[in-house]
Amino acid sequence: MARERGPRVGILGGGQLGWMMVLEGRRLGISFGVLDPDAGAPAARIADRAFRPGEGAELASWSDVVTYEFENAEAEAAEIAEAAGKLRPGLRPLLAKRNRLLEKRLFVELGIPTADFRPAGSPREVEEFLSSAGSAVVKALGGGYDGKGVRFLRNPGDAASIPWGYPVLVEEMVDVREEISVIVARSKSGEEVVYPAAENHNAGGILLYSIAPARDAEAVEAASRAAVRLARSMDYVGVLAVEFLVSADGRVLANEFAPRVHNTGHWSLCGAATSQFENHLRAILDMPLGSTEILRPTGIVNILGISRDELPVRDILSVPGARLWWYGKAEARPGRKMGHACVVAGSDEELRRRLRELMAAIYGDFPPSAAASVGAGALESEISHLSRSADA
Amino acid sequence: MARERGPRVGILGGGQLGWMMVLEGRRLGISFGVLDPDAGAPAARIADRAFRPGEGAELASWSDVVTYEFENAEAEAAEIAEAAGKLRPGLRPLLAKRNRLLEKRLFVELGIPTADFRPAGSPREVEEFLSSAGSAVVKALGGGYDGKGVRFLRNPGDAASIPWGYPVLVEEMVDVREEISVIVARSKSGEEVVYPAAENHNAGGILLYSIAPARDAEAVEAASRAAVRLARSMDYVGVLAVEFLVSADGRVLANEFAPRVHNTGHWSLCGAATSQFENHLRAILDMPLGSTEILRPTGIVNILGISRDELPVRDILSVPGARLWWYGKAEARPGRKMGHACVVAGSDEELRRRLRELMAAIYGDFPPSAAASVGAGALESEISHLSRSADA
Repeated sequence: MARERGPRVGILGGGQLGWMMVLEGRRLGISFGVLDPDAGAPAARIADRAFRPGEGAELASWSDVVTYEFENAEAEAAEIAEAAGKLRPGLRPLLAKRNRLLEKRLFVELGIPTADFRPAGSPREVEEFLSSAGSAVVKALGGGYDGKGVRFLRNPGDAASIPWGYPVLVEEMVDVREEISVIVARSKSGEEVVYPAAENHNAGGILLYSIAPARDAEAVEAASRAAVRLARSMDYVGVLAVEFLVSADGRVLANEFAPRVHNTGHWSLCGAATSQFENHLRAILDMPLGSTEILRPTGIVNILGISRDELPVRDILSVPGARLWWYGKAEARPGRKMGHACVVAGSDEELRRRLRELMAAIYGDFPPSAAASVGAGALESEISHLSRSADA
Repeated sequence: MARERGPRVGILGGGQLGWMMVLEGRRLGISFGVLDPDAGAPAARIADRAFRPGEGAELASWSDVVTYEFENAEAEAAEIAEAAGKLRPGLRPLLAKRNRLLEKRLFVELGIPTADFRPAGSPREVEEFLSSAGSAVVKALGGGYDGKGVRFLRNPGDAASIPWGYPVLVEEMVDVREEISVIVARSKSGEEVVYPAAENHNAGGILLYSIAPARDAEAVEAASRAAVRLARSMDYVGVLAVEFLVSADGRVLANEFAPRVHNTGHWSLCGAATSQFENHLRAILDMPLGSTEILRPTGIVNILGISRDELPVRDILSVPGARLWWYGKAEARPGRKMGHACVVAGSDEELRRRLRELMAAIYGDFPPSAAASVGAGALESEISHLSRSADA
C-alpha cells in the first residue's frame, strides 16, 4: 500500500454496486478498473480504466486485487484473476453461490438452519414434494437474484408451469414473519466486523425498503453467529451478505448468501461509521477494518423502474434526513434498480414515519412504470405496514 | 432538474474542495466540469469534462450552474459565468472576499463584531498603530488563505519587515481563547440551514485539526447569528463559512469568511446527516437542503506535507472510528494539504482521545516533511492540548 501510485482494484461488473465501490474507494487513494460489456454502465463511466469482456487477463495484470460486484458475471475473468492469485473473495464462494444446491448444502454442512429442501430431477418429483407438503418453493439452480428463478407452488399440477430445465431445487414454503440480513466483513488476516442486521421488505421478489437496526434481537444474534461461521468456513475475504427468513414459529433460517456488497447494506452509507463498500475495499486490500457502529436508525427505499424524468427529486430531498443515490443508468425498465434514497432519524418510530414519507414521495402517485415494477397492491401493503409499525 | 441528463455543475478550481464536491455530487446524478490549469488536479482528474484557463465561456455554456472552490482562482471565468447568470454564489461575495478591507467593512456595516482595524498606506502608519497598541497584525489586502499574507508584529520597527506592497490592513492582535467556525447553507429560494460550529486548531497559520461540535454554546450562538446575517446581507446562495476568534475576554469576533465549502466543515462528511459539499450543491441547484444534524462528535486531522510513501495508512485506519480522504495530489510540499482523516466517537472526551491517537498516527514520528509543514513545537503543543482537553 505504500507505493506512490496507491492500490489498484479491478471490479468484475459495472453496475451500481461497483459504482458505489468506486465512489467510496477514491477517498482511500484507490484506482479502479471495471470490466463490463456496457461502456456506459454506472461503474464503467467513472472508472480510471474500463475493460471489455475478453480482457480478463489485462484486468488481472493491471490490478493489484480483483473483486466482483455481481456473482453471475464474467466467469472466465474471475478464473483468470484467481489463477493470478488476485481474486478476493476467491472462486470458492462464487462457485457455491452460483448453484443453489451447493449453497444449501453448505448451510447444512455448517449446521446453519435453512428451509427443508431437496433436488428434483423432474416435474414428478416436484409434484411429490408438493402433494406431501401442500406447498413448495421451486428454484432454478443457477442465475437467480432479485426473485428471478423462483416460483411459489400452492396447487397440485403447478409443477407443470416451471419455465426452467431440470434439475431444480424444491424447498418448503416458510411462513415468513420477517426477513433480516447480516453483513460481515473479513480481511485476509482474519479480522472480522459485523454490521447491525437490517430488516428487509420485498415486493415482487425485489427489495423495496430496508431498515437498520432490525428489531428482533434474538433472531439477529442467531443470524450474526451463522453469518460469521459461514465466512470463516470459506476463509472468506471481503464483504459477505447473508439473508435469513424468520419463520412464524421463530426459526432463523439462512435463505441465501451473496459473496459481495449487498442492497440490504446500503443503509451503511448513511448511518454507519464506515460503509459496507469501504469495508469491502479495506478487507480485500488487507487494511484495518472500519467501525460498523450504527450512528442513527437508518432506512433506504429502492427506486425501481423510475426514469430521471419521472423522479420526484424535490419531494425525496424534502423528507427530513433524506439523501439520494441516483445510479445514472441510461434506461428505466420495470423492476430495474435506478437508485435509492436513505433516511436517518432519532428513533425507530421516527424512522418508520420518515420512511413512509419517503415511500410516498417516490411511489405515492404510482407512476405507471413504478406500479409495473412493484405492483400497486404490494406497494399499498408495504406502505400500510410502515404506518402500522411506526404507530406501534 | 427534470431533464433526462441531470444537472451540470461547473467548478472553478480543481483542488480537493472541488474533488469532494464531485465525489458527493455524483450520487445526485450531477455531472461536473472543472476548470483548472493543471489537468492532474484532484477534481480535474475525476470530472466529466476538464476545462483549461481561457475556456471560461465554454465552461459557462456547458454548465447549468457555475461555482468556485477557491476564491483567488480564475477571475475572468467567474465574471463570464456571472454575466451568463450562472455563477452561484455570485461575484459579490467573491469581490468582498478578495479584499480584506472590504471584508472587514462588511462585518462593521452589518454590526458583526470584529477586531479593530484600519487601512495603512505606509510603514509609518503601521508603526503608529504598533506604538499605540503595543502589537499588531498586518495583512495583505488580497490573496490570503492558510495564513498567507499575515504578519504578527510585536516590536517597534517590525513594520519594515512586511514583504508586500502598501496599502495593507492593520488589526489589533486579539488574545485568542479559541477559534470557531460556522457553516451556513442558503438556497436561492432563501431556505437556510446552519451546521453545528467547529472548534479549530491551527499550526503555522494552517488548520491542523478541528472538532465538532464546539463546546462554547454562548459563543456558538453569537457566531451562528452573525453568519446567517452575513449570508442574508449578500443574498448568498451556497455554502458560506465564517471564522470567529473568541477572545480571552469573551468577545466573539468575525475574523474572515470564505464564500465556499471550507476545511473546517470536512467533519460533516463523517458526522453530519448531510455533508457541506452536498448542501452546497443542493443550494446552488435550488434543491431542498439536507439536515445538518450532527450524528456523533466528530473530528478531522489535516495531513500536511506527507507523501503517499510516508503515509501511515494502517496506523490511521487502525484508530477506532477513523476514515481517510487522500486527495491524490502528485507532489507533497511542506504545508500542502494532501488529505485528511476523520474520526467519530460516542462522547466529546472519547473523541479527543481518538483525535490524539490520530494525530500520533499521522505525525507521531515527525517525518521531516511533516515537521517542516507544521513545526515540531506546534505539533507537540497541539497534541498536549488534546491530552489535556480529553482528560478535562
